[in-house]
Amino acid sequence: MITRLSTMFLRTLREDPADAEVASHKLLVRAGYVRRAAPGIYSWMPLGWTVLRNVEAIVREEMDAIGAQEVHFPALLPREPYQATGRWTEYGENLFRLKDRKNGDYLLGPTHEEMFTLLVKDIVSSYKGLPLSLYQIQTKYRDEARPRAGLLRGREFVMKDSYSFDVDDVGLQAAYQRHRDAYIRIFDRLGLRYVIVAATSGAMGGSASEEFLADCEIGEDTYVRSPGGYAANVEAVTVPVPDPIADDVIAAIPAAHVEDTPDTPTIDTLVAHANQRADDRYAEAALGRPFTAADTLKNVLVLLRHPDGSTEPLAVGVPGDREVDLKRLEAQVTPAEVEAFDEAQFAKHPTLVKGYIGPGVLGTENASGIRYLVDPRVIPGTRWLTGADQPGRHVFDLVAGRDFTPDGVIDAAEIREGDPAPDGSGPLSLARGIEMGHIFQLGRKYAEALDLKVLDQNGKLVTVTMGSYGVGVSRAVAAIAENSHDERGLIWPRAVAPADVHLVIAGKGEQISGAAEDLAEALDGFGVRVLLDDRNASPGVKFADAELIGIPTIVVVGRGVADGVVELRDRATGERRELPLAEVAGELVTLVRTGHPRVTEPVTG
Amino acid sequence: MITRLSTMFLRTLREDPADAEVASHKLLVRAGYVRRAAPGIYSWMPLGWTVLRNVEAIVREEMDAIGAQEVHFPALLPREPYQATGRWTEYGENLFRLKDRKNGDYLLGPTHEEMFTLLVKDIVSSYKGLPLSLYQIQTKYRDEARPRAGLLRGREFVMKDSYSFDVDDVGLQAAYQRHRDAYIRIFDRLGLRYVIVAATSGAMGGSASEEFLADCEIGEDTYVRSPGGYAANVEAVTVPVPDPIADDVIAAIPAAHVEDTPDTPTIDTLVAHANQRADDRYAEAALGRPFTAADTLKNVLVLLRHPDGSTEPLAVGVPGDREVDLKRLEAQVTPAEVEAFDEAQFAKHPTLVKGYIGPGVLGTENASGIRYLVDPRVIPGTRWLTGADQPGRHVFDLVAGRDFTPDGVIDAAEIREGDPAPDGSGPLSLARGIEMGHIFQLGRKYAEALDLKVLDQNGKLVTVTMGSYGVGVSRAVAAIAENSHDERGLIWPRAVAPADVHLVIAGKGEQISGAAEDLAEALDGFGVRVLLDDRNASPGVKFADAELIGIPTIVVVGRGVADGVVELRDRATGERRELPLAEVAGELVTLVRTGHPRVTEPVTG
Repeated sequence: MITRLSTMFLRTLREDPADAEVASHKLLVRAGYVRRAAPGIYSWMPLGWTVLRNVEAIVREEMDAIGAQEVHFPALLPREPYQATGRWTEYGENLFRLKDRKNGDYLLGPTHEEMFTLLVKDIVSSYKGLPLSLYQIQTKYRDEARPRAGLLRGREFVMKDSYSFDVDDVGLQAAYQRHRDAYIRIFDRLGLRYVIVAATSGAMGGSASEEFLADCEIGEDTYVRSPGGYAANVEAVTVPVPDPIADDVIAAIPAAHVEDTPDTPTIDTLVAHANQRADDRYAEAALGRPFTAADTLKNVLVLLRHPDGSTEPLAVGVPGDREVDLKRLEAQVTPAEVEAFDEAQFAKHPTLVKGYIGPGVLGTENASGIRYLVDPRVIPGTRWLTGADQPGRHVFDLVAGRDFTPDGVIDAAEIREGDPAPDGSGPLSLARGIEMGHIFQLGRKYAEALDLKVLDQNGKLVTVTMGSYGVGVSRAVAAIAENSHDERGLIWPRAVAPADVHLVIAGKGEQISGAAEDLAEALDGFGVRVLLDDRNASPGVKFADAELIGIPTIVVVGRGVADGVVELRDRATGERRELPLAEVAGELVTLVRTGHPRVTEPVTG
Repeated sequence: MITRLSTMFLRTLREDPADAEVASHKLLVRAGYVRRAAPGIYSWMPLGWTVLRNVEAIVREEMDAIGAQEVHFPALLPREPYQATGRWTEYGENLFRLKDRKNGDYLLGPTHEEMFTLLVKDIVSSYKGLPLSLYQIQTKYRDEARPRAGLLRGREFVMKDSYSFDVDDVGLQAAYQRHRDAYIRIFDRLGLRYVIVAATSGAMGGSASEEFLADCEIGEDTYVRSPGGYAANVEAVTVPVPDPIADDVIAAIPAAHVEDTPDTPTIDTLVAHANQRADDRYAEAALGRPFTAADTLKNVLVLLRHPDGSTEPLAVGVPGDREVDLKRLEAQVTPAEVEAFDEAQFAKHPTLVKGYIGPGVLGTENASGIRYLVDPRVIPGTRWLTGADQPGRHVFDLVAGRDFTPDGVIDAAEIREGDPAPDGSGPLSLARGIEMGHIFQLGRKYAEALDLKVLDQNGKLVTVTMGSYGVGVSRAVAAIAENSHDERGLIWPRAVAPADVHLVIAGKGEQISGAAEDLAEALDGFGVRVLLDDRNASPGVKFADAELIGIPTIVVVGRGVADGVVELRDRATGERRELPLAEVAGELVTLVRTGHPRVTEPVTG
């Protein structure tokens, strides 16, 4: 196929769009791949649509290869199935809801577990119809609070979602593994640098789940890795629980006692005070070393907003040297959302003394009535310096289990570079990524809610177990762009590039344009996709556009034609070489089909 | 590709779905192509999705072939562009509207003129960027009052919509013609029987427009044809205006006079009364023949509901032998909708005497204040028997132009078999069809509303002229099914069929299944798409399913294998023939590639 820039619906921009913050967004708009239609909603221009369809084709091939069957569901869905599973409410404001002319409730599908479950229930009645994997490549909708980064977090986007159905856990695990393998092939073929990490299952419910994260500094997800091979989304990292503390150690801890600690509303001021007070008997003798922030217990209050709109205060106790990580906290309390605990909230809970909140109010007699969850490191017998629920006063030697009892444990403290991996595989390092794929062993949550049962081999009705698997198809376009670009423009991997060769007519005259047209024809004959820059523009403009657009191979047909040579440029490496005009078609066909230049014998002459 | 029915996500039904009225709907559901998700909203099963994608591929090829460039717009669209053109309101209840979390107004796109116009405005600034044709194959939404007939009139559906942009009318006409030619190729390739008819432009605005109607008794559109080649949607048929009436003829008509016509609330009773009254001087002497219904003027009242919700009464005067055709009337008053004029409305207009409404109230001094439009046959000098606006009284010899003056003309009377074609090409015959395609010369309506101007060759800013062109892609699947089925099931044209060959293993034993598997493999090797019925079911069940599913060629591998023969069945004709097993693969490849059996020499032996 030959696509001519002279007639193509394209306008490249020299300036970054005003609303763009990340490279993929800037470059995809500047190079004419997409245009913003509304916040988080994009129109696909010819170049972008071609890339998206290339990505789709790869996803489709790999899904077909594992025997998944393609179907297609509506995006406009009735409320009832989502009501049955609770997600009509759970999705909160992230769900686009609407009414039809008869006042019926509808939604724009954010994901289709319910619809697939109901369809399978309609079609399959026996184990003989299983195992079954179905998928679709479909437009989805989520009313994100903060659509950002162009295609990376949109409100209308293309996803491949698939669902597996099995009679037992062994079947589910096999389906999960097949999808995992397919996803590896998909992301490899897309040319993405990515990691597979353990994930939380979020609003989906279910148990085992992993994410495929494209390696990217501007990604929204933070993940950890250890030298021993542990890898997890930071939201899914569990803090290793310390060994139990021996009774005699606990018995040796002095009784808790409250002291005046004037002007110590922060951890730093508190630690400084504890170490500087005139009577330092305590710190030196009993603790045996100076206080650090890790000896303090910081109690953070947040407000949980449940999907039904109701709110609930929550207190989270973490060692004072760590912050509460809001994303980790949200992952733990989902589908509730976390909001700030503001002055109005404090006013409603007069037992809470801001800056001096301690387990006395929260975790002993529960004078506050507020649920109190602590970090896994706060095990029975640990000894804390914490708020005394009075202005300017703290309590020393407060022992968990002895002096206070929290309502439970929550893994919400920040994870730091160098923290130990939970499986003992060494210190963690942190990096950021873009969630490209997510695979879940859902289990029976949706099948139970929607009553999907089949007869098993013994004629007994059993609830089906499901998996759910997603690939961000439109997001992949942006992730690839994010992974692969330079300051001059995009650099597409050939598998998804909108063309194989960007052929620039760099000069005037019949000889040059004739040679270029002939070359384009010859390449087209071999099935090479050519973008032919036949515009009436200067070579400088054309070269700049070629680098911006990012086709992997640029061929310059210019004055060299008089000497029978053209120039090949590799967009990724910048490497340039001249080739005889007569050889260039053969060379390009080899390059396109094999991914590397022709291996030729050295020319002797 | 070999698709095995043993593992396919498919359940065929012996019973028609309760809500299905038309054959395509019944068969597509029974054969497992689609499933209803909500009123007018369908899920595509594997077989149906394959057919839809085959249709899409044909549409895409033909659009690419005329140089149209594929893009893709969101379905979720902001209100503003549709507000600017008035369609946010004009679409009335047919538009799905919703709000996002920030209370912004959005809609689900019913068609994309506005978005394309704005995108082109953003990209193209000079005549050098034109002519331009853009298209998308995309999911669209209309909140139909009466979704019906399965995919034929859905609320979520797939359309190909394209738009042409030109600096002048000559360019628009060329773009229109290119689309017209492409549509002919598309519908030919889809194997549809169809007609091209003149159409009204409806809510789209603009001038010239034609529809492609698939010939179908259950179609919603009625069209007319004449022996001389006139063809039009009945909504677009214009009634030939009679020759003017000579002054002396008019002068000879007696003065209008009111008579008592007791018990004549209907046209029939009125005509009978006029012909049977004791004093028949009038009918015999002045009219020169008995009265017929065509001599009476019937005035019909309706209520127009404008898109902004306001209402307006309208009186339509037609010859008494014809009804007002509501669809023709609606086509004339669009975007207003037509509602019944009920008792409450009559109560608001006391000058109207039901059953005796005449131009005395409507068309003379406008005592009613109601707009009065008449059939084109009501030309000045025509002489009418009509209501006298008093119970039981009519007026005779009322002459249009002399005794009353309507507010205008409206083409809303029913068209009947045998009516003359407006172009004099003979009597019209009526038939029904399904609207498959619609091509419009929009002109400058949208470009003006959204200020799409470009610099022309003289450096002057000119408003762009546009065309708009649609193909009902999901509707085509149903229209093909409607066009091509029998009482046993679907009969797909090969170009869109979900497979080329339906290979039935009709018998037990290694020899039969082995031969079938080998044949499937051999066909797959030649690129023939095979649906292999390898289920553990009786031959009767398999044959019934094969006929229901409707793959063009059915191959039965059964006991004949012992004698080295298999049976080929043509789904459309029912023709059966036995072939040597050794020859069948070659025969099928020929059949698939050429559309007809191999021409062979007679076997002598």
